[in-house]
Amino acid sequence: MASTVGQVIKCRAAVAWEAGEPLVIEEVEVAPPQTMEVRLKILYTSLCHTDVYFWEAKGQKPIFPRILGHEASGIVESVGEGVTDLAPGDHVLPVFTGECKECAHCLSEESNMCNLLRINTDRGVMLSDGQSRFSIKGKPINHFLGTSTFSEYTVVHSGCVAKINPLAPLDKVCVLSCGFSTGFGATVNVAKPTKGSTVAVFGLGAVGLAAAEGARVSGASRIIGVDVNPKRFEEAKKFGVNEFVNPKDYDRPVQEVIAEMTGGGADRSVECTGNIDAMISAFECVHDGWGVAVLVGVPHKDAVLKTHPVNFLNERTLKGTFFGNYKPRSDLPSVVERYMNKEIELEKFITHEVTFSEINKAFDYMLQGASLRCIIRMDG
Amino acid sequence: MASTVGQVIKCRAAVAWEAGEPLVIEEVEVAPPQTMEVRLKILYTSLCHTDVYFWEAKGQKPIFPRILGHEASGIVESVGEGVTDLAPGDHVLPVFTGECKECAHCLSEESNMCNLLRINTDRGVMLSDGQSRFSIKGKPINHFLGTSTFSEYTVVHSGCVAKINPLAPLDKVCVLSCGFSTGFGATVNVAKPTKGSTVAVFGLGAVGLAAAEGARVSGASRIIGVDVNPKRFEEAKKFGVNEFVNPKDYDRPVQEVIAEMTGGGADRSVECTGNIDAMISAFECVHDGWGVAVLVGVPHKDAVLKTHPVNFLNERTLKGTFFGNYKPRSDLPSVVERYMNKEIELEKFITHEVTFSEINKAFDYMLQGASLRCIIRMDG
Repeated sequence: MASTVGQVIKCRAAVAWEAGEPLVIEEVEVAPPQTMEVRLKILYTSLCHTDVYFWEAKGQKPIFPRILGHEASGIVESVGEGVTDLAPGDHVLPVFTGECKECAHCLSEESNMCNLLRINTDRGVMLSDGQSRFSIKGKPINHFLGTSTFSEYTVVHSGCVAKINPLAPLDKVCVLSCGFSTGFGATVNVAKPTKGSTVAVFGLGAVGLAAAEGARVSGASRIIGVDVNPKRFEEAKKFGVNEFVNPKDYDRPVQEVIAEMTGGGADRSVECTGNIDAMISAFECVHDGWGVAVLVGVPHKDAVLKTHPVNFLNERTLKGTFFGNYKPRSDLPSVVERYMNKEIELEKFITHEVTFSEINKAFDYMLQGASLRCIIRMDG
Repeated sequence: MASTVGQVIKCRAAVAWEAGEPLVIEEVEVAPPQTMEVRLKILYTSLCHTDVYFWEAKGQKPIFPRILGHEASGIVESVGEGVTDLAPGDHVLPVFTGECKECAHCLSEESNMCNLLRINTDRGVMLSDGQSRFSIKGKPINHFLGTSTFSEYTVVHSGCVAKINPLAPLDKVCVLSCGFSTGFGATVNVAKPTKGSTVAVFGLGAVGLAAAEGARVSGASRIIGVDVNPKRFEEAKKFGVNEFVNPKDYDRPVQEVIAEMTGGGADRSVECTGNIDAMISAFECVHDGWGVAVLVGVPHKDAVLKTHPVNFLNERTLKGTFFGNYKPRSDLPSVVERYMNKEIELEKFITHEVTFSEINKAFDYMLQGASLRCIIRMDG
């Protein structure tokens, strides 16, 4: 097979031509990577709510046509000028947020909000030159989150690529690119429950269940799942959730219910819904003296968090986190290792699998609430 | 001199007979300590805003006649049944919040909000039997915060007494019983600024200046004092404050001013006013990615903290603290040692001194805003 390095690659991509319309598998041209970029062959991509959110494009500036997708695994095909830490053949996870390793955030031990490569949901082009690397018959197609993994080949800034153990099964670890790491990291990196503690998880979707997995791995003895959909409770048991609260079953605030169940409050809580009332409950349900609440879910742009400041003065802590506080290049390889060491169970998150040509089925599963993660095999 | 153990002691106390009226030096009877209590000879007491607040008793249930005072130093005169860790002659600091060493809070490394001996501002009697140990001609006089240090002798729960180095000068370390520790601990125990960092301190009263002292001791390179009273700026320089912001000088929120001064926000902030707008500013002025804001000031009971949750999701942390997170018995002795080692400068907090018979002058100094701390010598 002739080398593709430096050449435009023609391949299949699932193009979102319009908001809410089924994706169309098209032949796209993928330009070679430019300075500090890499071109990846995507092998597996999974569908995340964020893809659906930007596909629906409700209340957003519509950026179409666009190639969505940001939870994926693949292999480096070629690298652009200046890229020294990645080489063709490397097994990688592309990530929607990056790590330049030079800015104040990357140099801080506490932050993963890289100044250069921080998530940008409105940009449909590459950072370096404001151009797209995708086109169909000369017409540019927009990127998404700098990843656009619903394509057999994609171009990504090298700072948004985590090189991982080549022995890792790419059809499993692809879920580490977004949802799993976001929830799991919120618990293990930010909430940091100690062994034997009580953790309340608000929202039992994939991110919330990953937060519960973090609590399980941390040795929490009580993991209280909070969700308005009682169908989620049975599934959640697999993830270590051993008590359930449906706020609809009570005529008083759920924080009061949790305080009563736990003798004063949970030790930690993790909010994964983005609903502002759930955020307030998640904060107010933690124990005074030592309780820590962590916000993960993305709220409505007009949402206002309101609480009595005495809730803070009674020594509660409220923090938020983004991508589980993981620095993608520095930290994701070790999360892959934790999976390889059977510490983390990713299989239970993967409820469906479809071929690339069936990608719209993955959207259906998610919209029906049937799937946690549906893996899309790019070779099919 | 005959032993006073087990006897009622007659001594002088400054009694607040009515809200806002000058204290009156009276002869009071002080009953012997009961189970788990100690009787202290108070040598020095200093005046704190909290004394003035409960003396004014605005919008509160008035509890008079009352012996105020809670920032003090003294010597154990006698101990009640069951007290094994204190003995007559011990040098001590009485503290308005206690440490039973048995409850979940005392057993937690993170909390100092003892379930048994947590501050109670409405109780005018001893915890054990609901009785006062003070009386004048048989008429009981109310206690205050379990300390009532405006008396030559007082009775305190033994869990509210920190035994300290007998070489420590009691006329200085008395300020560690409340204000200094509250502000200093908020910085060193909770905000934990690293060397070279930027700390914004809201409110340059005694607590705020103690917070600044904590930042200075921690090696912060920029300590930004925020206060609406520009007269406080000159004084604050002694406490390490090296930049000043008066919110009244700007027509935009002070958090924006601080973000601009600091290239995105302070690393840490400590709020010592209790004003709700200052609390919100203190939170919103910290840097995304790693900023931590600590609330110390006590807000109005109807205050509501409002902010956009994205301020949290951008990896900011908001916490509150009470008495600087110090456990009084376990931790205060080491704060005294830090003073003895000249690490902490207490002298600059002590701006005035009066004799006990002149105690109303201490109130005047504070009401005029002239004093940081006025020491009241009980022997005069």
